[in-house]
Amino acid sequence: MKAEIIAVGTELLLGQVVNSNATFLSEELAGLGFEVYYHTVVGDNPERLETVLDLADSRSELVVLCGGLGPTEDDLTKQVVAKHVGKELIRDEAGYQKLQAFFAKREQPMTENNLLQALIIDGGQALANRTGLAVGIFYQAPSVNYLLLPGPPNELKPMVYEQAVPLLKEQFIQEEQLISRVLRFYGIGESRLVTELKELIEEQTNPTVAPYAKPNEVTLRLTVKCKIEAIGQQQLDELEQVIMNRVGEFFYGYGETNSLANVVVDLLKQQQKTITAAESLTAGLFQATLGDVPGVSAVFPGGFVTYSKEMKQALLGIDEELLHTYGTVSKECVEAMAQQARQRAQTDYAVAFSGVAGPEEIEGQEVGTVWIALASKEGTYSIRKVIPRDRAAIRRNAVMDGLNIVRKALLKHGTL
Amino acid sequence: MKAEIIAVGTELLLGQVVNSNATFLSEELAGLGFEVYYHTVVGDNPERLETVLDLADSRSELVVLCGGLGPTEDDLTKQVVAKHVGKELIRDEAGYQKLQAFFAKREQPMTENNLLQALIIDGGQALANRTGLAVGIFYQAPSVNYLLLPGPPNELKPMVYEQAVPLLKEQFIQEEQLISRVLRFYGIGESRLVTELKELIEEQTNPTVAPYAKPNEVTLRLTVKCKIEAIGQQQLDELEQVIMNRVGEFFYGYGETNSLANVVVDLLKQQQKTITAAESLTAGLFQATLGDVPGVSAVFPGGFVTYSKEMKQALLGIDEELLHTYGTVSKECVEAMAQQARQRAQTDYAVAFSGVAGPEEIEGQEVGTVWIALASKEGTYSIRKVIPRDRAAIRRNAVMDGLNIVRKALLKHGTL
Repeated sequence: MKAEIIAVGTELLLGQVVNSNATFLSEELAGLGFEVYYHTVVGDNPERLETVLDLADSRSELVVLCGGLGPTEDDLTKQVVAKHVGKELIRDEAGYQKLQAFFAKREQPMTENNLLQALIIDGGQALANRTGLAVGIFYQAPSVNYLLLPGPPNELKPMVYEQAVPLLKEQFIQEEQLISRVLRFYGIGESRLVTELKELIEEQTNPTVAPYAKPNEVTLRLTVKCKIEAIGQQQLDELEQVIMNRVGEFFYGYGETNSLANVVVDLLKQQQKTITAAESLTAGLFQATLGDVPGVSAVFPGGFVTYSKEMKQALLGIDEELLHTYGTVSKECVEAMAQQARQRAQTDYAVAFSGVAGPEEIEGQEVGTVWIALASKEGTYSIRKVIPRDRAAIRRNAVMDGLNIVRKALLKHGTL
Repeated sequence: MKAEIIAVGTELLLGQVVNSNATFLSEELAGLGFEVYYHTVVGDNPERLETVLDLADSRSELVVLCGGLGPTEDDLTKQVVAKHVGKELIRDEAGYQKLQAFFAKREQPMTENNLLQALIIDGGQALANRTGLAVGIFYQAPSVNYLLLPGPPNELKPMVYEQAVPLLKEQFIQEEQLISRVLRFYGIGESRLVTELKELIEEQTNPTVAPYAKPNEVTLRLTVKCKIEAIGQQQLDELEQVIMNRVGEFFYGYGETNSLANVVVDLLKQQQKTITAAESLTAGLFQATLGDVPGVSAVFPGGFVTYSKEMKQALLGIDEELLHTYGTVSKECVEAMAQQARQRAQTDYAVAFSGVAGPEEIEGQEVGTVWIALASKEGTYSIRKVIPRDRAAIRRNAVMDGLNIVRKALLKHGTL
């Protein structure tokens, strides 16, 4: 089924906001089996929006609009669509109650223009807005279906996950259901992953495999259309097995919102182990990344940011002689940092980072040189890498590598 | 002059890549005085691209295409545009030399399809690609101008800054020139900034004022069209003065690529002062943010991540009695952390963070409660805030507030 996405808002055309809604909606629609052939952005202008709707009618069966459902005079998406399909706007009672309750709680009078947010197209279906005030609308004309969604991503996403996706499944996928599974990979680039799985990605029609390049990692979304869930799951299991045989060494976890840091914190919790870090190159970024995970305090007491030689000596007691002989960007220094951090914080594991983030060389070592060490009761282990990228990328990449080293150590330990 | 942007690539329609090029190009085109009325995304399909070009011809004078200039069989933007304007593709000699040199250096044979990257539309102008191999093209048909740019942002951006912008200025702005100035603000939301400057933003035509909401801050771009640069600069000075009179207390710096962390590091360098941090809530994020700035090692030796009570005692010597009496999320604790960090790292300034990032309350304090302290030779100062947002936003916001507190202290000190 052909679909297209129309984002409405002059702020998008001025470059003030990125059209991330189109990307999000495209991934969701692709997961439901829709073929999205066009994205359009148009300003808050009724004539131009009307022209865009005419064009969309001629080429798509599902037209998803986002933005322009708010209370200001610039918000005119539903007025224009209502006129386009020759219908009036009528009040959605649930949306209206929510509006009233909202203003009553704030003890503010509700101005007239706010009522706009509770109007829907006559004959259409309201989609409640859990995180905002403007209701969404699903309207079916004889040959085209319109889905109107709010512009703010924190309103649009819950409405899509909780209401639009189930509704589209029910309307257009009937007896069959779609099941998706997301696999996450670290340490393999998108182009290599695509090469390894080329014929699966290009030729498979059910289940399908779609790669997504995310910052510092790649995900694969497997989707199956099926009548019986158990059979669909089995098809996904079989496909996953084929994928794992080829690129399983880079797999680290399942799920749309998972991360390497999540997986590391979960493994530490399961094994009741603790971790610290001593960071030079990364200046706290490894610990800050662990800190993103709710509940990390059970496994992470804190650690050390030792950017200068003096702080390496003062906080970690690194020997001046060692620093003088080997330099700070060295196997000897980074291993000593990890060992000392582990001892001083009394944790099971300690990771240490040293390297050259640029723009200048340090101690004659080229920009991008990174040393990472892991200390545990089994001893100390370190790796050297050269990451030929910019300052921010070198530091981010080093943090991800550090997390992956810890993950591998925990998995090995867990299976002993 | 009316312009529109067409991004070509099936990966955009599958939601695998965000169309950040359209956002970037829109901001640049708005800065040049173009009116961008539409963005379109279309897949790697010659028929659909041809239809989109027909439509663009009917409504725009400048059509900017990005993507589809590479060597693969999916890349067909310039072939389709050439056919659309009835011209052949011919070799660009400079682009061809670069291709040959590239493959010679790698000692790889250059395959036939790579030659595509050095072809331009007959009668058009080649735009050299400093960071890649596919040349860009500027082609003028009788009533429409086409600008073809590569899809990867790291190739597109330098080509736009270094070649497309000067070329468009020369072609379309003639005797007049455009001068831009970017002002950066922290601590004021976009909606309030827009309200304070409402009539300047809505009614001014030369110079213009455009607001941009960036993560955690807002920027204003002032643009003036002028024949003599000195007069233009004076007009911008006058406009800036009006803006500063209204919202100057939130201004922190100039420039498209500046940041609060940059400004803080610059001030520290100018005043030859040093800084450290003791982080609980933020778990290293403040120090990692300083670490983003090249050359920060001159003013930042390192610091402390003290997530647990035990680490607050071990690394900073915070009194157990104090922790017991006041709790970790308290004025007393955060001020002691800052003082101890300053003393132990022997720096001029120390910032400390404590708070509740969620999902659960700590010590009966609500999620979002943040304490930030600054210690210096003038004493210790602290603030309490409640940031009613999610975990990541609370931590990021606290870091920005910490930077702003240091900035204000440095400015005050600098003017004494």
